[in-house]
Amino acid sequence: MASHKGQLRIGLIGTGFMGKTHVFGFAAAQRVFDLPYELVLHTVADRTDELASAAAQALGFQKASSDWKSLVADPDIDVIDITAPNAFHKEMALAALAAGKHVYCEKPLATTAADAAEMTRAAEAAGVRTQVGFNYLCNPLFALARDMIRNGELGEIRSYRGIHAEDYMADADSPFTFRHDPVGGGALADLGSHALATAEYLLGPIASVQGDAVTVIDSRPDGKGGQRAVEVDDLGRAFLRFANGASGSLEASWIATGRKMQHDFEVYGTKGALVFTQERFNELNFYDMADKQGRRGFRRIEAGPDHAPYGLFCVAPGHQLGFNDLKAIEIAGFVDAIAGKRPEPFSFRSGQRIQELVEAIQRSAVEKRWVETT
Amino acid sequence: MASHKGQLRIGLIGTGFMGKTHVFGFAAAQRVFDLPYELVLHTVADRTDELASAAAQALGFQKASSDWKSLVADPDIDVIDITAPNAFHKEMALAALAAGKHVYCEKPLATTAADAAEMTRAAEAAGVRTQVGFNYLCNPLFALARDMIRNGELGEIRSYRGIHAEDYMADADSPFTFRHDPVGGGALADLGSHALATAEYLLGPIASVQGDAVTVIDSRPDGKGGQRAVEVDDLGRAFLRFANGASGSLEASWIATGRKMQHDFEVYGTKGALVFTQERFNELNFYDMADKQGRRGFRRIEAGPDHAPYGLFCVAPGHQLGFNDLKAIEIAGFVDAIAGKRPEPFSFRSGQRIQELVEAIQRSAVEKRWVETT
Amino acid sequence: MASHKGQLRIGLIGTGFMGKTHVFGFAAAQRVFDLPYELVLHTVADRTDELASAAAQALGFQKASSDWKSLVADPDIDVIDITAPNAFHKEMALAALAAGKHVYCEKPLATTAADAAEMTRAAEAAGVRTQVGFNYLCNPLFALARDMIRNGELGEIRSYRGIHAEDYMADADSPFTFRHDPVGGGALADLGSHALATAEYLLGPIASVQGDAVTVIDSRPDGKGGQRAVEVDDLGRAFLRFANGASGSLEASWIATGRKMQHDFEVYGTKGALVFTQERFNELNFYDMADKQGRRGFRRIEAGPDHAPYGLFCVAPGHQLGFNDLKAIEIAGFVDAIAGKRPEPFSFRSGQRIQELVEAIQRSAVEKRWVETT
Amino acid sequence: MASHKGQLRIGLIGTGFMGKTHVFGFAAAQRVFDLPYELVLHTVADRTDELASAAAQALGFQKASSDWKSLVADPDIDVIDITAPNAFHKEMALAALAAGKHVYCEKPLATTAADAAEMTRAAEAAGVRTQVGFNYLCNPLFALARDMIRNGELGEIRSYRGIHAEDYMADADSPFTFRHDPVGGGALADLGSHALATAEYLLGPIASVQGDAVTVIDSRPDGKGGQRAVEVDDLGRAFLRFANGASGSLEASWIATGRKMQHDFEVYGTKGALVFTQERFNELNFYDMADKQGRRGFRRIEAGPDHAPYGLFCVAPGHQLGFNDLKAIEIAGFVDAIAGKRPEPFSFRSGQRIQELVEAIQRSAVEKRWVETT
Repeated sequence: MASHKGQLRIGLIGTGFMGKTHVFGFAAAQRVFDLPYELVLHTVADRTDELASAAAQALGFQKASSDWKSLVADPDIDVIDITAPNAFHKEMALAALAAGKHVYCEKPLATTAADAAEMTRAAEAAGVRTQVGFNYLCNPLFALARDMIRNGELGEIRSYRGIHAEDYMADADSPFTFRHDPVGGGALADLGSHALATAEYLLGPIASVQGDAVTVIDSRPDGKGGQRAVEVDDLGRAFLRFANGASGSLEASWIATGRKMQHDFEVYGTKGALVFTQERFNELNFYDMADKQGRRGFRRIEAGPDHAPYGLFCVAPGHQLGFNDLKAIEIAGFVDAIAGKRPEPFSFRSGQRIQELVEAIQRSAVEKRWVETT
Repeated sequence: MASHKGQLRIGLIGTGFMGKTHVFGFAAAQRVFDLPYELVLHTVADRTDELASAAAQALGFQKASSDWKSLVADPDIDVIDITAPNAFHKEMALAALAAGKHVYCEKPLATTAADAAEMTRAAEAAGVRTQVGFNYLCNPLFALARDMIRNGELGEIRSYRGIHAEDYMADADSPFTFRHDPVGGGALADLGSHALATAEYLLGPIASVQGDAVTVIDSRPDGKGGQRAVEVDDLGRAFLRFANGASGSLEASWIATGRKMQHDFEVYGTKGALVFTQERFNELNFYDMADKQGRRGFRRIEAGPDHAPYGLFCVAPGHQLGFNDLKAIEIAGFVDAIAGKRPEPFSFRSGQRIQELVEAIQRSAVEKRWVETT
Repeated sequence: MASHKGQLRIGLIGTGFMGKTHVFGFAAAQRVFDLPYELVLHTVADRTDELASAAAQALGFQKASSDWKSLVADPDIDVIDITAPNAFHKEMALAALAAGKHVYCEKPLATTAADAAEMTRAAEAAGVRTQVGFNYLCNPLFALARDMIRNGELGEIRSYRGIHAEDYMADADSPFTFRHDPVGGGALADLGSHALATAEYLLGPIASVQGDAVTVIDSRPDGKGGQRAVEVDDLGRAFLRFANGASGSLEASWIATGRKMQHDFEVYGTKGALVFTQERFNELNFYDMADKQGRRGFRRIEAGPDHAPYGLFCVAPGHQLGFNDLKAIEIAGFVDAIAGKRPEPFSFRSGQRIQELVEAIQRSAVEKRWVETT
Repeated sequence: MASHKGQLRIGLIGTGFMGKTHVFGFAAAQRVFDLPYELVLHTVADRTDELASAAAQALGFQKASSDWKSLVADPDIDVIDITAPNAFHKEMALAALAAGKHVYCEKPLATTAADAAEMTRAAEAAGVRTQVGFNYLCNPLFALARDMIRNGELGEIRSYRGIHAEDYMADADSPFTFRHDPVGGGALADLGSHALATAEYLLGPIASVQGDAVTVIDSRPDGKGGQRAVEVDDLGRAFLRFANGASGSLEASWIATGRKMQHDFEVYGTKGALVFTQERFNELNFYDMADKQGRRGFRRIEAGPDHAPYGLFCVAPGHQLGFNDLKAIEIAGFVDAIAGKRPEPFSFRSGQRIQELVEAIQRSAVEKRWVETT
């Protein structure tokens, strides 16, 4: 689908945490990057007219709608941006693809890998551009880390450790939500997916996994005065084998009391190592065996203009990007892909891959055996 | 000056580091906050038509001008935003005030306290709202720190340590710029001003100072193949006495090799202490004597929705604000002040105060004596 | 065996890294603690008379011997301290036990769990006191952590993460040693044993494990100009189930480039969490849900006199213990046990347990299945 | 004075915090270092026979005495070790020097610089070896830092920041002690002395100072139910000029709530920088401009065998020294000096220098002017 006279008109479905974050990202991306299109906040859809109108006003959309289907069908809209609950992603995306729209969908792409695959097939058949929102990958220091790994600064990669732990489900009295749905729910799906995306971003394909999954809080308030059984994992773990020969491990937890954003990785190679925590995501720690003996140590690299696209946000180093800036980078990549300026940063196919890995770990945990993932 | 039908139309002068940061801030503030006005990027001025037009396109302004005076006089504009070099602040601001505009001026307000005082008088006579850009103060954790100090969580405050050190002037081969101008230049003026603003933000008025100022690099390339003598300080220090009885110290350096953003403070009271570094500005370290013996320690508080207005940017804790987000908070405060919703967060009078403190320290250093500052 | 007139006479076998550390520990323990015996460095044994005599002089022993068997048989000696290579532990310990000596043996107790069990049986039949050297457990902050877990400060424990990673085998050109011996060698045995000891020290018995083991460097120089195949693991990992219901993970690596002492643990409970790294082993980070909202954070507790027996080393907090001080604490515990003042801190039975866990993980990795460990 | 047949017989006066630390240091130094003498704990003196006997037993001295004068006169003793309260240092040291003993005296050497000078003259006239206990200087990473500064790794040194802050006097209800004595008391004398010793150790002579001194708690319990006025500083600060041209600052506080051991320094040069805190004294952070652009950052060097004499304590890096180990290093240096193997590490003359600097800062604070210190 062509854009409209240099504009890219966006239809947003969903106005929660991620809906707002996307809108902030559109605003920042438009200013910070030299985008090939003007981004236009065209229509926002929410469950009722009232909610949609309020959202349109608050978020700056021209129109509001309580009918996502008409939004998807609107010929004036170029991009459908889906931030609705996970269970709706598939239906919405397929409708948008059928209407020939570019589709930007929050992670996870779908609640099952099979659904994700169907969505990928539809996207590729439609010939449009797609994007799944794995924002942590958009950190300039992730690009630096990947560059360092690829260009051999760490030597041969031997081992990897990845974590994504938070505590927003640590309270057993917090209610049952769609994130606890037996289909598509659980910490591995919600947070492990981020850890998997980071692992493959940095080291390339994971070849096989051995999983572990634990349900710690086995029932939660159902919102009607009762309790509802929970089947999904609160904790997930995996051993990993990468296609490049390295081995690793991964952990996902949404009950890690005190942790707000422990999206960490450690990469050990023959010539050096990298240690990162999202808790301080403007820093990357690098150990270089080439340093003089007696002077070696983990070096705290602070993000700066040397690490594109940081310099577009701020010409001075050490000033730091925020979480919403990562979303702006994500959006700029998608917009560039729509204009054909570069490949899709994280397409539906990539999102499908993450779903497959999540399910492989879940299946491995149940079947208590290694599962191939290539 | 009334706004234009719910709009606040902005005329920006200057398109460098801070000009861009302001534009990013306008974009984010509009989306993140429920502002009383729609912010309109009306006109941008730069030195030539070409530069101004390019900036207008890149930054999203409706109009461009190579004549800041006509911009200031344009009746369609409500707010004049000055990010030009410091030496121009006074003339531009006085012209804007004469035209009845609200004025937003980057720090330092002027190159001398006398000029700043003249600007303050003009602003107060004009009855408009003014703002000076001390963005670090807009950190939600600064508000937390001030609240904790004011509500007695630290007990009686006894001592303070403030630093602002960077290294962007550490290279003796970096050329002479307006920041080295004998009038208004130097590390104390450029960075010490931030440290002073933070000190008074947290502890209230500084009553007297004993200064120290050192020129380390006494000449720099003049850009014409020669060298030009430098008279301003590369390093400034001060002992402080606060009106509340506490004592403290302060340091400013722009030659602190390796430091990119060491805007730090430490506050020690009878009941607790706070330790902060801008290098990790989403964290505030708090020591609480009320903690049980054997369990005490500096507690790393991560910014989250408990610390307004963080929650408007992100509903989840630990995701982190970026430098540009601080500017958005600064702008939101100014816009609210224009609408009469709250006092000016950091008016010309506040900016003048900082200039006076800077000059008091400089004078004290020269005269080698304590100088009163109340 | 009775001590000799208030003395405890020590016979040391082995004078390498751990031999020296033990001697430093004896010296410190004697001064720092109010021990029930005077420790006497009686005899040291090494491979030749020359080496033994030199060691006796350097380390302060009264006598030297090139025959460990005569040392073990010497009726003037009360305690046999074994720091010889792992493969000799069993023979030496059994001889010492047969001679009725108390036995202090460096970890690992033996190269196989079966040997360790034989040693335990002999020790318990002899009725003497035994000790295996798991020094990290002697950190006063480990005792604090265990107390906090036991007294409910963290609530119900849900998850655990344990690591012991160093890089002393990261260089593929470092030669084949006894640590690479197929019997008893490998990172899991050498370092994973520490991580296992810490895990059970803190959370109690591990009920089952799923292991992973990887040989990264498959041959090393044999010291004769050739290469020798390596079969043991350079990296070991495990999923854990504790008897108390918590789940966890564990990693051991001796090829973690840049890591010198990453003996870390993280414990997450319903009311709080603990995070520790041996890289800063005088600090324990504690997150307490009971802290006031908006003031919560990981609290860096620095070791001090509140954390016994720190105060015996230094009356002032924050001054820090060193690695050798941990050994002194270990020794004081053993000496007290010999005097009947308290139970053995870490007996042969405890050492056997660690061996069994190591083998369970190794077996699990080979057989690719969960293995019961209770 | 010759030692006694290869022995160095020590007479200790004072059995408090530092007395014990010295004894621990003697024990460790004897084992860890290849000392030229056997250290013999000969006699300990305390105020009463009972106290002295108990100390002798607890600390391992052969004899006890309630008369320090007879201890000093005992011809069997080679070294007099003074850890009594500061006010007694002079009389004891002069008596010891008159008896021809080597003298080891805790810091501060005396309560006034004049007294310290008298002691220095007596020491140099006696031709014996002397030592003042500035233990922090004995950190292997201090030697590394000094080496790096001297060999040009940081380029030309431009600025310095030194701190020593603790909180052991933060409680206004803690009683008046000798540390509050108008002669020789105060935070500058007690802790600032450490900061000064470190500053000159690293950068060489301080040429002039501008001081600041504040009494925060102006009376304390006198131990008899009343209050006693306090005149000495709780907080001291100074601007510094070094003979090498660098400028700097210094702070001492014993009321820094939460701080247990903030003995910090930061050194900024043209080619690099060092940042250190005693809170993590086994780490030195080094920023190297020679690192590749985009890869620069403060590098956390962990102490190891590359940093002598760490390797004598432990052959493996990252295991960490403790506070008592620093004392052992201090003692080994003194013993070597007695044997003529190397210059006195920190003689009475050095101790006198520190007293002079402390008084210069105090005088400068009172007179509110810069004071020359060379």
